[in-house]
Amino acid sequence: MDIQSIRDDFPGLASTMRGKDLIYFDNGATSLKPRPVLEALEGYYRDYSANIHRGVYEMSERATAAYDNARETLRRFLGASPGEGEVIFTRGTTESINLVAYSWASKVLGPGDEILLTAMEHHSNIVPWQYVAQRTGAVLRYIPMTPEGALTDEAISDSLGPRVRLVAITAMSNVTGYMPDLAALVARARQGGARVLVDGAQYACHHAVNVTDLDCDFFAFSGHKMCGPTGIGVLYARRELLEEMDPFHYGGDMIQEVTLEGSTWAHLPEKFEAGTPHIAGAVGMAAAAEYLLGIGLEEIAAHERDLLRYITEVAGQLPYLRSFGPGDIERRGGIFSFALEGVHPHDVGSLLDQQGIAVRTGFHCAQPLMAHFGATGTVRASFYLYNTRQEIDRFVAALERLYGILG
Amino acid sequence: MDIQSIRDDFPGLASTMRGKDLIYFDNGATSLKPRPVLEALEGYYRDYSANIHRGVYEMSERATAAYDNARETLRRFLGASPGEGEVIFTRGTTESINLVAYSWASKVLGPGDEILLTAMEHHSNIVPWQYVAQRTGAVLRYIPMTPEGALTDEAISDSLGPRVRLVAITAMSNVTGYMPDLAALVARARQGGARVLVDGAQYACHHAVNVTDLDCDFFAFSGHKMCGPTGIGVLYARRELLEEMDPFHYGGDMIQEVTLEGSTWAHLPEKFEAGTPHIAGAVGMAAAAEYLLGIGLEEIAAHERDLLRYITEVAGQLPYLRSFGPGDIERRGGIFSFALEGVHPHDVGSLLDQQGIAVRTGFHCAQPLMAHFGATGTVRASFYLYNTRQEIDRFVAALERLYGILG
Repeated sequence: MDIQSIRDDFPGLASTMRGKDLIYFDNGATSLKPRPVLEALEGYYRDYSANIHRGVYEMSERATAAYDNARETLRRFLGASPGEGEVIFTRGTTESINLVAYSWASKVLGPGDEILLTAMEHHSNIVPWQYVAQRTGAVLRYIPMTPEGALTDEAISDSLGPRVRLVAITAMSNVTGYMPDLAALVARARQGGARVLVDGAQYACHHAVNVTDLDCDFFAFSGHKMCGPTGIGVLYARRELLEEMDPFHYGGDMIQEVTLEGSTWAHLPEKFEAGTPHIAGAVGMAAAAEYLLGIGLEEIAAHERDLLRYITEVAGQLPYLRSFGPGDIERRGGIFSFALEGVHPHDVGSLLDQQGIAVRTGFHCAQPLMAHFGATGTVRASFYLYNTRQEIDRFVAALERLYGILG
Repeated sequence: MDIQSIRDDFPGLASTMRGKDLIYFDNGATSLKPRPVLEALEGYYRDYSANIHRGVYEMSERATAAYDNARETLRRFLGASPGEGEVIFTRGTTESINLVAYSWASKVLGPGDEILLTAMEHHSNIVPWQYVAQRTGAVLRYIPMTPEGALTDEAISDSLGPRVRLVAITAMSNVTGYMPDLAALVARARQGGARVLVDGAQYACHHAVNVTDLDCDFFAFSGHKMCGPTGIGVLYARRELLEEMDPFHYGGDMIQEVTLEGSTWAHLPEKFEAGTPHIAGAVGMAAAAEYLLGIGLEEIAAHERDLLRYITEVAGQLPYLRSFGPGDIERRGGIFSFALEGVHPHDVGSLLDQQGIAVRTGFHCAQPLMAHFGATGTVRASFYLYNTRQEIDRFVAALERLYGILG
């Protein structure tokens, strides 16, 4: 993997911040965008910004083909089966999960049914299930975590009781980067008759995904975290579930026939895509997927693991730094969350900003995990394919300097 | 209004289609994009593509400011009150209407309550209400139309019975361009205690809107039809309603506090914006609004009315052409729907495409209106600020030629 050539693809990396060369370590929040994505977006908006479907003219046919091809690219990216209509475009991970909550869980679950979560979930994979529980009488349960925020095989087994109808779990924590053993979990859950929804927001941008091998029922992720545009994401769902589900948003394009009295639904995937979709977003997200596939997701994951190993070694030397998350680097993506003794995370973030370094601070939309750690917040440095060991050196030097001032 | 200078702002107009200079008459489906919008989008994605809110670094502060300013621009565009949090970003008109259907109507309406619609609504303003009716026992009623598809004062008055809790109505038909007398309708409906939702998808891109003067309760529209990006739209709603409404999508950014057991909601407008929003979309939609405000929406509406008057005169001469919609041009926006005797609309569209002319054909997501007209579809030419009388001349000449072949 030629990092310099990758860095050249991202015009945003040439920015300065507070007069310093930018170090962008906030990839867990969103990623910078490479030229092929900028070009795909500009190409649509400048050259063929027509609406899709039912257009009888060339420009609309071109937009339709681009949109359909985008779906096909993302199907390949996910390893879903061809021709099944299992790839739905949404606004992002949050909408993908809400779609399942409204159109599947609210319909299928009943009083006493259990939804199994973990306390490391992002709010977007907790709050929709609280809504479902309220509406259906289903009960939320949480797989117990180790103090470091890992899930043991035993904890998973013990939690998978006969009343569990749905397991909704992240593929990678947005705070610690911890990646539970999903393959084992899915197999066990499915054996017991439960459905499994995977929140892939943090995972799919860094690791190869194959929903067919994984055998999950739902898989949700976003474009903007994987080098793509904002406002676009995907829900993968097993066809048999999509068929039994009600639509979510109602309107044009998702119907077969409308009379004053009632309507019938379009085939998959259109049944779940009411209204003019985010055409440019789909096209841009597909360009991002192609870009990542071209580099190789295995290579990207390995590079980020190397960065995590490096920062754990170097920053781990600092006696006043507490890092969060399980120690086993092999089970973690490129996220390094920490706190400096006696210094508020927000102040760390602000002083890093003065050095041109972008990190996120706070509770990271994961208040239950913060409660688990007994922390009010962390500083999070999250890496992507364009980050380097040199940046980590500058980052750690900045931490030492600022602790000298504040600590 | 300097049309040539406006045309120079739209790089898409320089395209050719089937080797002919493009005439883009499909603005009812979506609009082309001017340079300031392309630049706003590229600016975000290239220079400051950070996530918003809670970022402690400059690039994120810049993205946050751009997103907040976009909301403020759209508030001004709508004439909503400042500081009330009444402008919610959505994916588009369809989601805006679904949000009201799920979070307001499904909660507030009960058996026997009436939702008053018209048969000229786009499917996106019918199908969500069918869902609400099914769920709540509310009843859908339709204001009767004249044969041409107009609403008389009498028909409106007669329809506004005491059980009407919601009137959901388009500000401008996407098939005929007909614009009902909304001011009178809203006043009368509100007097009777009904709430009014206005589908502004076709209207807001061409006409000045002032929701405060109009006194409606909900107003929905999309970015992509008003020179802006795809995947973004707005729901305006009265603050008192937003406060009593449940959230729609659940997740990050719309919460105040999350525990394993339950959550509390953020203030307005965040309560309705779960997850990372379409940041670039909001910024681009605001750039489009600024662009239209800079030219002047009164001028744009007048120009399009002139084009409609002109095409009605010229194409009205063709004895084999039947046009749809009320005769009063003053009550219509720049949409000209028609059929040629004995020729399928699809064939008209295909032959126009060969001449470089983009129109839409079919039922335009308005099957009930088609049924009202006894038509299986129409050809729709829909105009925008960059269209000209010369284009209409070329269009009508093309119609005459193709009728000579097919008619």
